[in-house]
Amino acid sequence: MKAISIGLLGLGTVGTGVVKIIESHQDKLMHQIGCPVSIKKILVKSLSKERQVPVDSSLLTERVEDIVEDPEIDVVIEVMGGVDETRSLLLTALQNKKHIVTANKDLMALYGPELLSTATENGCDLFYEASVAGGIPILRGLVDGLASDRITKMMGIVNGTTNFILTKMSKNGSAYEDVLKQAQELGYAEADPTSDVSGMDAARKMAILATLGFSMTIDLDDVKVHGITEISKDDLEYSKKLGYTMKLIGIASREGEKVEVSVQPTLLPETHPLASVNDEYNAVYVYGEAVGETMFYGPGAGSLPTATAVVSDLVGVIKNMRLGVNGRSTVAPQYPKSLKAPEDINAKFFIRLHVSDEVGVLANITSIFSEHGVSFDKILQLPLKQKESSEIVLVTHRASLFNFENIMQELIDNPRVKEIKSTYRVEGEGAI
Amino acid sequence: MKAISIGLLGLGTVGTGVVKIIESHQDKLMHQIGCPVSIKKILVKSLSKERQVPVDSSLLTERVEDIVEDPEIDVVIEVMGGVDETRSLLLTALQNKKHIVTANKDLMALYGPELLSTATENGCDLFYEASVAGGIPILRGLVDGLASDRITKMMGIVNGTTNFILTKMSKNGSAYEDVLKQAQELGYAEADPTSDVSGMDAARKMAILATLGFSMTIDLDDVKVHGITEISKDDLEYSKKLGYTMKLIGIASREGEKVEVSVQPTLLPETHPLASVNDEYNAVYVYGEAVGETMFYGPGAGSLPTATAVVSDLVGVIKNMRLGVNGRSTVAPQYPKSLKAPEDINAKFFIRLHVSDEVGVLANITSIFSEHGVSFDKILQLPLKQKESSEIVLVTHRASLFNFENIMQELIDNPRVKEIKSTYRVEGEGAI
Repeated sequence: MKAISIGLLGLGTVGTGVVKIIESHQDKLMHQIGCPVSIKKILVKSLSKERQVPVDSSLLTERVEDIVEDPEIDVVIEVMGGVDETRSLLLTALQNKKHIVTANKDLMALYGPELLSTATENGCDLFYEASVAGGIPILRGLVDGLASDRITKMMGIVNGTTNFILTKMSKNGSAYEDVLKQAQELGYAEADPTSDVSGMDAARKMAILATLGFSMTIDLDDVKVHGITEISKDDLEYSKKLGYTMKLIGIASREGEKVEVSVQPTLLPETHPLASVNDEYNAVYVYGEAVGETMFYGPGAGSLPTATAVVSDLVGVIKNMRLGVNGRSTVAPQYPKSLKAPEDINAKFFIRLHVSDEVGVLANITSIFSEHGVSFDKILQLPLKQKESSEIVLVTHRASLFNFENIMQELIDNPRVKEIKSTYRVEGEGAI
Repeated sequence: MKAISIGLLGLGTVGTGVVKIIESHQDKLMHQIGCPVSIKKILVKSLSKERQVPVDSSLLTERVEDIVEDPEIDVVIEVMGGVDETRSLLLTALQNKKHIVTANKDLMALYGPELLSTATENGCDLFYEASVAGGIPILRGLVDGLASDRITKMMGIVNGTTNFILTKMSKNGSAYEDVLKQAQELGYAEADPTSDVSGMDAARKMAILATLGFSMTIDLDDVKVHGITEISKDDLEYSKKLGYTMKLIGIASREGEKVEVSVQPTLLPETHPLASVNDEYNAVYVYGEAVGETMFYGPGAGSLPTATAVVSDLVGVIKNMRLGVNGRSTVAPQYPKSLKAPEDINAKFFIRLHVSDEVGVLANITSIFSEHGVSFDKILQLPLKQKESSEIVLVTHRASLFNFENIMQELIDNPRVKEIKSTYRVEGEGAI
């Protein structure tokens, strides 16, 4: 039987894993899809560079046309990264009737809808499981659950670098800068960690998840993002004292027709399933009206885990090819985009303040909250070493983001408030 | 467009959920599969019984032929339970070219291979996601992972009743009998809890998981089973002291071509992802050579969670119908069955002993282990209130089950050993 021919765009960490898996799993691939799979061409930046995996040098090319315009190539696997050039390459490949498997979250978060509709127009599959939480089959999980359930909330730990940093800060009481340095030495963080620690990487993944899970086109700009760079040791200590664990959480929630998608440091009760997801691991917690709570846990990155997701997608494409049903599995968004206003977003909030140490200050502060109809779940007041100051930690009951932001403005303007040290969302307690 | 006609066998807890979901999700079903779905007939034991859900009484029937022999019914959903009669019903339905979705673990554990091959012969789909861990899409996760990875170990908390009991025993220090009674009152345990607490229910699910994950027909008789009825408060206390959490764990592991499938109370390090799966929740931890550790978490039972899995399978069947590709997605077992002998099974073991309180007893006991080449990870020796006895708790390093069983025999015969109070496997530390 004729082999399926693959063109591979990129031979970095993930590309190397894909080559390894396709070579070492020929038997299993044959058993599942009934025909051999062979890599025909691999696009690389430089033919002369040394490779991490032994590759027949005749497979390598520096010319994109050797892949996207070769009529013998059936499936293009894109693991080269990048956005604009890659987008145009993949559009060409789709117009040339090649199916696509991609691990590129940046691309899918920005141009997913365009690429998916181009794929459908050309009768091609475009699968992108590896773009979110590498080794976790979360996109398939969502698609499977969609028809029989209504997903109302997703919370994800979808960035391994920041989860590694927060886990170490929390366990060892270390400062952010020290742990970041350690993470860079261990290879868990890039030399320029901005994309991870700013929350942008997580935001891209949440845009992809929300678009699929809510069947609504969510653009990257719709995602409110706050990173982990300002989290202090004190914040982590107080969280622990109050029974919480700090995580960088991507939230996609829906009430009625309106959705909110955001990424921010968030406090979760220690008993929440996401609270025990540690180190570089990822997890996506999904709440469906019928199924209730489910969670998918696994490695979010890495050569072989991500390559596994890519090859699973490839198997899906090839099964569809053999059945002659490519291009039919994409489900177009069903609902028009409708974003929540701050009035519609409800959560509990953690606030840490430094206030002047005078009679009646706590009563004064808390009255500001109650004027906005916000009451408290937990209150801690502690003296500070600096004279004439105390520290107040408050955890509210559920309140709207609108009310919370107004309260914060009043606190900034209040002469008794010396400094708002930090504020965090609190999730995973009670109401979904 | 012509509606897809469903015949429903059974209208109990899960059947009621299926009716509710199909009725309330018509829009979403239409969006995903492009045609309406309607329930044509529902088999019930008695037409006159009161129903938990409003159902048009003209849909109800007591005659199986109204479903399995009605040429207009496309898909039979089996949620009636039972084994022998149900098997023959489903074989008839398959011979009449009806696709099947079943939630029946007892049936699939005993007759899965026969039913699946009959389905393939008749060009029919037979899906059974709901038979293992209700709301968790674990079977699809395994199938997706199979082609691109080699699964070497699965560990599952796949019985909600026993997990509820062990969680409460562990948290509140309560005795087994008391918690069982409480679980029965809350509806988490049956009046006759034997199938759950004996481990048999978990064993059925592990047989299904192992058959799929290892691509090898594993019969229920191949699963070694030990239940939770003998677990004492003392065992749980010592586990905690040593940093472990006790869970009823189904293990399916593979080394080379040989596999072991078993269910037993097992100690896991508190930091293991499975250790924080509490109450009635289920989870399946999967180790793949390429992907590493993944875990699927969610509700293992319940009307709507299980019905969600059934309807997701139904959507899969209908998509295949519309593509004309039914009966092609079953992957026949690839390998002949090969079970590990006790010599091939390696684990760490926890042993709690009462011994006579005399000089040299610990040296005597430990020398028995070392004669069999088994060394220790942890040793605790404590005096007992009863005169002239002490309690010894040992945790070994990894050892073969064969050596461990020989050591136990020698300890039984040893006059200084008054009683072997308990032994447990220890998993999740180090070697897979």
